[in-house]
Amino acid sequence: MEKFTVQFIPYDVCIEVNRGDSLIAAAMDAGVHINASCGGGGVCGKCRVMVEKGVSECEQTDKLTSEEYEAGWRLACKTEVRDNLTVRIPMESTAHKGGELPKVTPRATAHIRTMDFEVLKEGGMFIPPMEKVYVELSPPDAADNSSDLTRLFHHLKHVTGEGGLDIDFSVIPKIPGVLREGDFKATVTLKRPVTDGNKSRIVNIETGDHTDCNYAIALDIGTTTVYGELFDLKDASVISQYGKVNSQVSYGEDVISRIIYAEKKGGLERLRQVVVETINDVLGKLLSGSGSEVNVDDITTICIAGNTTMTQLFLGVDPRSIRRAPYVPAASLYPSLSAHKLGLSLPEHTMAFIYPLISSYVGGDIVAGVMGSGLYRSEKLTLFIDIGTNAEIVVGNKEWLACTACSAGPAFEGGGIKFGMRAANGAIEGFSIDPDSWEPMLRTVGNARPKGICGSGLITAVAVLFENRLIDSRGKFNTDVSTPRLREHEGITEYVVVWADETDIGRDITLTEPDIDNLIRAKGAIYSGCETLLNEVGLVIGDIEQIILAGGFGSYIDLGRAFTIGFLPEIDPDKVIFMGNGSLIGAKMSALTNTMRQDVVQVVGMMTNFELSETLSYMDHYIAALFLPHTDLNLFPRLKARLAVG
Amino acid sequence: MEKFTVQFIPYDVCIEVNRGDSLIAAAMDAGVHINASCGGGGVCGKCRVMVEKGVSECEQTDKLTSEEYEAGWRLACKTEVRDNLTVRIPMESTAHKGGELPKVTPRATAHIRTMDFEVLKEGGMFIPPMEKVYVELSPPDAADNSSDLTRLFHHLKHVTGEGGLDIDFSVIPKIPGVLREGDFKATVTLKRPVTDGNKSRIVNIETGDHTDCNYAIALDIGTTTVYGELFDLKDASVISQYGKVNSQVSYGEDVISRIIYAEKKGGLERLRQVVVETINDVLGKLLSGSGSEVNVDDITTICIAGNTTMTQLFLGVDPRSIRRAPYVPAASLYPSLSAHKLGLSLPEHTMAFIYPLISSYVGGDIVAGVMGSGLYRSEKLTLFIDIGTNAEIVVGNKEWLACTACSAGPAFEGGGIKFGMRAANGAIEGFSIDPDSWEPMLRTVGNARPKGICGSGLITAVAVLFENRLIDSRGKFNTDVSTPRLREHEGITEYVVVWADETDIGRDITLTEPDIDNLIRAKGAIYSGCETLLNEVGLVIGDIEQIILAGGFGSYIDLGRAFTIGFLPEIDPDKVIFMGNGSLIGAKMSALTNTMRQDVVQVVGMMTNFELSETLSYMDHYIAALFLPHTDLNLFPRLKARLAVG
Repeated sequence: MEKFTVQFIPYDVCIEVNRGDSLIAAAMDAGVHINASCGGGGVCGKCRVMVEKGVSECEQTDKLTSEEYEAGWRLACKTEVRDNLTVRIPMESTAHKGGELPKVTPRATAHIRTMDFEVLKEGGMFIPPMEKVYVELSPPDAADNSSDLTRLFHHLKHVTGEGGLDIDFSVIPKIPGVLREGDFKATVTLKRPVTDGNKSRIVNIETGDHTDCNYAIALDIGTTTVYGELFDLKDASVISQYGKVNSQVSYGEDVISRIIYAEKKGGLERLRQVVVETINDVLGKLLSGSGSEVNVDDITTICIAGNTTMTQLFLGVDPRSIRRAPYVPAASLYPSLSAHKLGLSLPEHTMAFIYPLISSYVGGDIVAGVMGSGLYRSEKLTLFIDIGTNAEIVVGNKEWLACTACSAGPAFEGGGIKFGMRAANGAIEGFSIDPDSWEPMLRTVGNARPKGICGSGLITAVAVLFENRLIDSRGKFNTDVSTPRLREHEGITEYVVVWADETDIGRDITLTEPDIDNLIRAKGAIYSGCETLLNEVGLVIGDIEQIILAGGFGSYIDLGRAFTIGFLPEIDPDKVIFMGNGSLIGAKMSALTNTMRQDVVQVVGMMTNFELSETLSYMDHYIAALFLPHTDLNLFPRLKARLAVG
Repeated sequence: MEKFTVQFIPYDVCIEVNRGDSLIAAAMDAGVHINASCGGGGVCGKCRVMVEKGVSECEQTDKLTSEEYEAGWRLACKTEVRDNLTVRIPMESTAHKGGELPKVTPRATAHIRTMDFEVLKEGGMFIPPMEKVYVELSPPDAADNSSDLTRLFHHLKHVTGEGGLDIDFSVIPKIPGVLREGDFKATVTLKRPVTDGNKSRIVNIETGDHTDCNYAIALDIGTTTVYGELFDLKDASVISQYGKVNSQVSYGEDVISRIIYAEKKGGLERLRQVVVETINDVLGKLLSGSGSEVNVDDITTICIAGNTTMTQLFLGVDPRSIRRAPYVPAASLYPSLSAHKLGLSLPEHTMAFIYPLISSYVGGDIVAGVMGSGLYRSEKLTLFIDIGTNAEIVVGNKEWLACTACSAGPAFEGGGIKFGMRAANGAIEGFSIDPDSWEPMLRTVGNARPKGICGSGLITAVAVLFENRLIDSRGKFNTDVSTPRLREHEGITEYVVVWADETDIGRDITLTEPDIDNLIRAKGAIYSGCETLLNEVGLVIGDIEQIILAGGFGSYIDLGRAFTIGFLPEIDPDKVIFMGNGSLIGAKMSALTNTMRQDVVQVVGMMTNFELSETLSYMDHYIAALFLPHTDLNLFPRLKARLAVG
């Protein structure tokens, strides 16, 4: 993606941004404050900036006259960066008193690691579990009238070096016709074995040469959303992607309520049908999204990852033991099988690979993340966290792995927060305030008028309020501060993030003390989960060499602010990697490399699961973590230093 | 079975017979002629004999006065042997002129070899492919909450010594419920691998201990009849047996007409459905025949053997290449699969094993016969012949095997013979004549009034007529003989076997010159097939050390007579073994011993198939065999000697 630099003056700060990013996003990343209380909708007109160098355009609004526009004035929220720019922030916009420039704290972002197909290829690992092999058999004659299958086996042994192949029964009825239609030239689809002793298995045969048409789907069955990606097994190129709400949400928001529903008569089958329908919708969209490029018959592979409950519900396996001590899943490793048998709208020869899982609360989605992130091959002591309603934590390296799960509650997904919402259009995801006026700068998803606050916005907002001493380490507001934005409403103290007339919802969007309390409990659960798991394996927070963040939540997260509230163990931000949907990435990689399908069996075997409910020290760690950032500030030396300076 | 001896005087001949055999059958086996032209119906009253020692009873008829009965006179056809007897044949009954006793030639019968379970057991081979294993798992707790399947695998490794088992996907949904219902005590059904590298596979799990309930079905899918046997895998004991006409006969009598039908639109699927219905009827009868002893869920195994066409039609595999040069079957080895998937009324966990086959005309029924007869483990050079419309011939021993098939035509099953019929009630199966009067002695199936002549009767009748010089070596009647039984009717010379009033059909039952011609061509095809196959592997008829006869036809066959007409290579009758339905026996043995399931893969690999149509010498051999017994009498030294004496 094309990059441009934006220099902000009078600050001495320069930032590199992607083409098309808004100036307000650039400013926020740079840590430069511009009063921008409407979140990018162009409503408040406060975010006026002067572009002094470089070509820029913005929508003409009644907030700027033609003369102002000609002079270089722009609304930062409506200006997309398409050139290297020098941008002057007018001091009235910074709302800063006394001429002294405010402190600049650039947003610390995690490295985004996506799967690198070239790395796979160079490592000799690009051997998909499903392979198409073209064969040209010599037609039978009087001298050799052995059976079609015998002929095929002999030839494949010659071509692949592998004798005594297995074959799916359902392939055999196709063989005589396919061979004779194609003058004994055909393409055989082989499924490579997951264990060394086993043989490859023939799962399909087609007339002619189809080796170029070998496609796969990676599927992440989330409790909330089902994501799919259709890609080409030749070169890993993405053909289409699609996500859809898991229709099971009608039967319960979280896994526990789904399990309760599954225990009702017919409930399990109903939930299975419902998620299969959702998946089939996703498959349909992936195919239609491919144009006419991909024929469904050419999809050889579907790799499926989900948490343990989603996995069992999808497979029709009674999940009741998942929610009852001692929390036992039905199986950890599932055999591969025809996707068709699972009710998916895919041919019988499409093989479904179900990601193995560790325990009732560390599921296939997490194992996929561990595989997809490369953690299991890392030399570094790594902390892997997948953040959602439940947070799953894995610690270890290529030598050993341990894991646990904790219930973070729905705060990060907007649950239990007065104006909480998912990271959809209009969600406040970035936030800063002017330290003198307490006026905010907002960034919203899609630069839309604000509708609410999403998880990353919540973390940033609480961190910013804490850094600016509007709240204390217990999360209580400093009511000595005088600003109309801080008020008591119906007995609850709250900060007005956006005034009603600048929102999309016609009401003041506020952040309340109970919201902050919920966030502290959520982040405390995760932090103490990490701490407890490390302690159980004889380590401490300071031993961590690398953090990998996975989950839908987290892509925009400001690491500095995450450390500020004690959401993550403090570490050099350069050592934090954000991988996004680890479940989907792991699923995709397993479809691309059979080595990973083999390795995952080892990984599952070596990973030790800890149930926090069985770990006595967890509660102590949790209570100690119910502060900003923590009762023990020494765990956050960088923050401690910063707060001391401030 | 209880045995008795019957001594016939004035002949010096004594024979051992089973309790309940008729005196006429005993006489026929002893080679003693009694005029008995009605075949055992008690109609002609000619078969009067005097029982001089031993207790005997027969139905009182108007053919014997009370005084005669008191004096010891009996009708041989109505007297069942229930004591050791001395029986006088009155000279008027033998119809012999001049007082000289006729020559006595006892019927030479093959040894009947049935499967000996004890031999299997002693040989350490009694390890069925499907095994039930009882497990008592320790329930999960906080210290070990690994998945149910992991727990099961660990325990099975401990019990069976085998790690890394496979599992059918369909078993997994059952596991949580089954384990918890039974306090973690359960029975697992394992399918043993057919190749050494592979692992056993879990195909079912049940609550509690079911190791005592492990049943199997052997199934022979014949072109005409489907036979099934239900038996206990604990001790091989037979629970029920049933045979039913293959409903496919409505679509064609023989395999070629079935293939032609299968080539029509929808034909293959129709034939598949029809035979599946027949099999399901057989399965239903086998189960109802077991009383309530066997629950269908306890059937773990069904071993299925059939000729190549029957196999492909049953499996829904297009058979068109079978009937077209170069005669290629779709597959030789089929993977095992769930019987349910084949449409059978059996549970999903019942494994179906399809007998492997060699070629288009040497099918799984023959391979089953080779396995079931032990030929593949024999030191002796053995000729195996399965006689039906097609005759399949295997020659070899434990070191090597070769096979071929020839079309014998339907003569042995009654086809193309004026009064031909299958070996059903009323079929003439035994025949002799008085050398002076040309009057016959008949034995019919079920001692019923004659309806026609079955295959073994035909062989015997032609042999007897030839031995008595009523026909010559070309099969033409000697019209110099003066008897009303030899006549010309509508331009065709024929011998009257039974006069109309002694039959069940109200017409004279005759044997015509065209009948004899058909028989000669049928036996010539088989004999020359044996000769050609032996020659192809560098051997001659004289090298044969043992003959095994299989097939529905053949149980009553009189070996002496079979040699007489040149139907079989001449060999010491002691070296001929009759095994009956080799297909069913082989299927049963494979269900009892996994070793055989493994061995058969080797056997199929080592057996060389010869297509007689591609073998130039076959036609020469065939033409040379169109004589009684053959153009070269030196091939039949015993017969040559006997004819010289006569």
